[in-house]
Amino acid sequence: MDFRDPTDRTDRADRPDLVDQHCHGVLREGPVDTAHFGSLLTESDAPPAPGTSHFDSQLGFAVRRWCAPALDLPANCPPDVYLARRRELGTPEVTRRLLRAAGLATLLVDTGLPGDLLVPAELADAAGAPAHEIVRLETVAESVADQGPDAAALPGRLTEAIAEAARGAVAFKSVVAYRHGLALEPDPPSAAEARAAAGRWLAERERGGRLTDPVLLRCLLWSAAGTGLPLQLHTGFGDSDLRLPDADPLLLTDLVRALQPTGCRLVLLHCYPYHRGAGYLAAVYPHVYADLGLTLGHTGARARAVLAEALELTPFGKLLFSTDAYGLPELYLVGSRTFTSGLGELLDTWVKERSWAPADAARVAALIGGGNARRLYGLVDG
Amino acid sequence: MDFRDPTDRTDRADRPDLVDQHCHGVLREGPVDTAHFGSLLTESDAPPAPGTSHFDSQLGFAVRRWCAPALDLPANCPPDVYLARRRELGTPEVTRRLLRAAGLATLLVDTGLPGDLLVPAELADAAGAPAHEIVRLETVAESVADQGPDAAALPGRLTEAIAEAARGAVAFKSVVAYRHGLALEPDPPSAAEARAAAGRWLAERERGGRLTDPVLLRCLLWSAAGTGLPLQLHTGFGDSDLRLPDADPLLLTDLVRALQPTGCRLVLLHCYPYHRGAGYLAAVYPHVYADLGLTLGHTGARARAVLAEALELTPFGKLLFSTDAYGLPELYLVGSRTFTSGLGELLDTWVKERSWAPADAARVAALIGGGNARRLYGLVDG
Amino acid sequence: MDFRDPTDRTDRADRPDLVDQHCHGVLREGPVDTAHFGSLLTESDAPPAPGTSHFDSQLGFAVRRWCAPALDLPANCPPDVYLARRRELGTPEVTRRLLRAAGLATLLVDTGLPGDLLVPAELADAAGAPAHEIVRLETVAESVADQGPDAAALPGRLTEAIAEAARGAVAFKSVVAYRHGLALEPDPPSAAEARAAAGRWLAERERGGRLTDPVLLRCLLWSAAGTGLPLQLHTGFGDSDLRLPDADPLLLTDLVRALQPTGCRLVLLHCYPYHRGAGYLAAVYPHVYADLGLTLGHTGARARAVLAEALELTPFGKLLFSTDAYGLPELYLVGSRTFTSGLGELLDTWVKERSWAPADAARVAALIGGGNARRLYGLVDG
Repeated sequence: MDFRDPTDRTDRADRPDLVDQHCHGVLREGPVDTAHFGSLLTESDAPPAPGTSHFDSQLGFAVRRWCAPALDLPANCPPDVYLARRRELGTPEVTRRLLRAAGLATLLVDTGLPGDLLVPAELADAAGAPAHEIVRLETVAESVADQGPDAAALPGRLTEAIAEAARGAVAFKSVVAYRHGLALEPDPPSAAEARAAAGRWLAERERGGRLTDPVLLRCLLWSAAGTGLPLQLHTGFGDSDLRLPDADPLLLTDLVRALQPTGCRLVLLHCYPYHRGAGYLAAVYPHVYADLGLTLGHTGARARAVLAEALELTPFGKLLFSTDAYGLPELYLVGSRTFTSGLGELLDTWVKERSWAPADAARVAALIGGGNARRLYGLVDG
Repeated sequence: MDFRDPTDRTDRADRPDLVDQHCHGVLREGPVDTAHFGSLLTESDAPPAPGTSHFDSQLGFAVRRWCAPALDLPANCPPDVYLARRRELGTPEVTRRLLRAAGLATLLVDTGLPGDLLVPAELADAAGAPAHEIVRLETVAESVADQGPDAAALPGRLTEAIAEAARGAVAFKSVVAYRHGLALEPDPPSAAEARAAAGRWLAERERGGRLTDPVLLRCLLWSAAGTGLPLQLHTGFGDSDLRLPDADPLLLTDLVRALQPTGCRLVLLHCYPYHRGAGYLAAVYPHVYADLGLTLGHTGARARAVLAEALELTPFGKLLFSTDAYGLPELYLVGSRTFTSGLGELLDTWVKERSWAPADAARVAALIGGGNARRLYGLVDG
Repeated sequence: MDFRDPTDRTDRADRPDLVDQHCHGVLREGPVDTAHFGSLLTESDAPPAPGTSHFDSQLGFAVRRWCAPALDLPANCPPDVYLARRRELGTPEVTRRLLRAAGLATLLVDTGLPGDLLVPAELADAAGAPAHEIVRLETVAESVADQGPDAAALPGRLTEAIAEAARGAVAFKSVVAYRHGLALEPDPPSAAEARAAAGRWLAERERGGRLTDPVLLRCLLWSAAGTGLPLQLHTGFGDSDLRLPDADPLLLTDLVRALQPTGCRLVLLHCYPYHRGAGYLAAVYPHVYADLGLTLGHTGARARAVLAEALELTPFGKLLFSTDAYGLPELYLVGSRTFTSGLGELLDTWVKERSWAPADAARVAALIGGGNARRLYGLVDG
């Protein structure tokens, strides 16, 4: 499969229109120094092994491979050369170059992360492509709680706030995998349970507690399901705040079944190393979709192999593309290129060995790269 | 490894004699329409993603690749062309062509699935190869219960019926993975436990309850173990009736240990995505065997990669071949071809890089394709 | 990546200096017969499938591939030819040849396994490379208990004995995965808990009970953490004494977090089939390292594929090399060659497809092959 140069936007009909169905803002003021840049290349909050740097990973190598040419440097140039050039060009120019080179037709931006980040309209401007907002449920809940409702009022306020947020968003996102884990009671909480949980949480909040109560987290999921928007769920690996076994998407099985009658479509994000299990859920439940998000950049030269595993059971109408880029614009380009090159090589192989017809490969590339997301989110503008 | 054309049955000595150690009947009257055909290509009971069809999966593509030529069509021809030709030829001719092309020397048929399916003798006739019966334990139990025994008599009747069924069968099969999950108490239930469970189940049956009681399911397994026949267990993925984490074959560890002194040989079917864990069990327990059954067809162009993973720890005398074909004769040919082409390419690679001697590759191909099954089931006729 | 012939020790600067960071003694008197040899090729304590031998596995084939040439035989020669030549040369000569051919610069030897095995000094002599001792915590505990302390004294004695053992060792090793499983309470036991557990164990010991009490096992881990030496933990597959799901390194997550403030560095050994999860832990926790040990030899022709998976998330400064050789000197050579050939081919591929720069590949090979271990264990002599 030969993906055309995604920086060439003149001939849309002939190249995959990539829809980045889950990404975040990048820093308005680029990383302040090498250590800061390195810290944005890892899911760890700790220093690298002595004698090495956070560039010594598949992601670090992938940044040097894919991003250096966009800054007029040879691929795989040393980290210090790359960072010097980055400083020379300045953050706005670097951001613009890397986002343009990513070749995205549309961005769906989760705005729930902290930091002085570009907002969707600014990302859209840098990328030259429209951006839509994904609303993070737990952030909505924190905002509602900040308004000081009592425990009796809180559950209803959450539902109202989520319905309100739905009007300006294309999807919801939940990080319940971080806050509690994915092993949740499948049913919607009763009103009494919700009130009791609200009371507990409001009391904890006075001591600084973030929202980790599974009853309230389930309230958020069920309220989101009621809006008709797709619901994205973090699954699989992330930073050290996560207990990885609690983020196995198969833990969602009962909730997936419980939500099926509501019509709510669920998008399992990232999934690694549980992407085969996610593929199974996407295969047997009509409302389940999956992507590899964070996984592709972080596995770098191995992204093709991981994509191949995701393409074992996941129906071709159910796999989505995203970069999960955050903080560094590099993560947009790396996410895009590991996807297009990885999928392209994979499909080429299958065509070459006559497993797939060329037209099938082209159609599947278009579905995964953007068609599935356009259909799922009802996108009409990119 | 070059597997000879399996449709050429004139020269048995020179080609792998495939023993399909786990398969099912195919529809006597072919699928009534395109949607029906599609529903037999998926483990889901729901429609495909909008704008796609159930052909848009590795299995769907594999059917077009491997089956179209057997119906005189070019490989990878479009679904509608394929289905039109299928209607033109008629179900009996399609069935005969596809089963013959699968190149099977023997079929071991699990007859416990519903539907108007060809019985083993009819499959044998279509395939041109002998067929033997595998008896599904849960089906035996339902038949016994239909005869109206009281709770005190039921456990003994189950044991008798299983012993009786053993006389005409080559193996037993259990779907306890569906009915309860594989996390079972390892020991045989006491007589009192069995009676109590029988009472509960007979009461539930009046309200339509199928057999899900873990005590009775364990009675079935222990009764089967007493017959000396191999016992096949569904493990790994299946349809949406399954909770996949409950089907991890490693959950069987304690039961595997408890059954070891009985001499009962256990066959772990399908296994995906837990096939590496299944390989470990086959490596350390002398009475455990594994196959990939359902997995090979459903992963299509990726079958070779999955086979490679199964061949990491599984001893070469312990891996078995099956198609798990059901409903569509296509699944016989796809199961056979994904296996022979996948294994053939894998062994070729290892020989080419000098990891394996050519004679070793040929011997291992013969063991996995049929030799291991012939030894395990005591087959003498094909 | 082209690893130079590791038997050529004349030019150290140009080849990876392999540090085998986890291995064991080999039999002083070679295996007595073919069956005995075979039993040392498997993690099972049972006979192979009828009609096959324990050579019929990836490890068996890898022995024939890699070891036959070191005994002047063609690669992949038949098992009986190999074993005849082995007898002809005699155990000492075979041991010397195979250990030399493994091209090890340093050996870190876990001396806690039973049998009439070469001690580290003898292994060093055979390998022509220095050997250092790894002390197995559970063996220390048994020795302490043999001295007859009462329950009140035992916990303190364990701590003292571990501190004493640390003086002559480069690392500790725990087999808590076998004795209890890795799902442990994360905190150090209180003195009262430890005394109570000591009393229970000392009573059990009179009836022959080995140390399986989780409280005492945690005492050992925390005492080892206090010494400042790295702590190696068996994770992943092993022999049939293990329940594999209990050896998933992700079960250690809470303990990993609890130990982080102590500065104790943790080394996850073997890891298969949970090596991707181990890579995640190594990526997000600064004190976690991983190796594939036992895995590479046992997966033989598939070692490259497994290494590739481990290199998805594991930072390049965190992956280590070991053979986990035990009993047979063949396991040293097989472990070494599957690693160097597997990693070499993998890195060659990434360089060839321009994912990695050649200098990066060379540097990463040197880190994984030995540099990471030298830094971690403070090695200065090989």
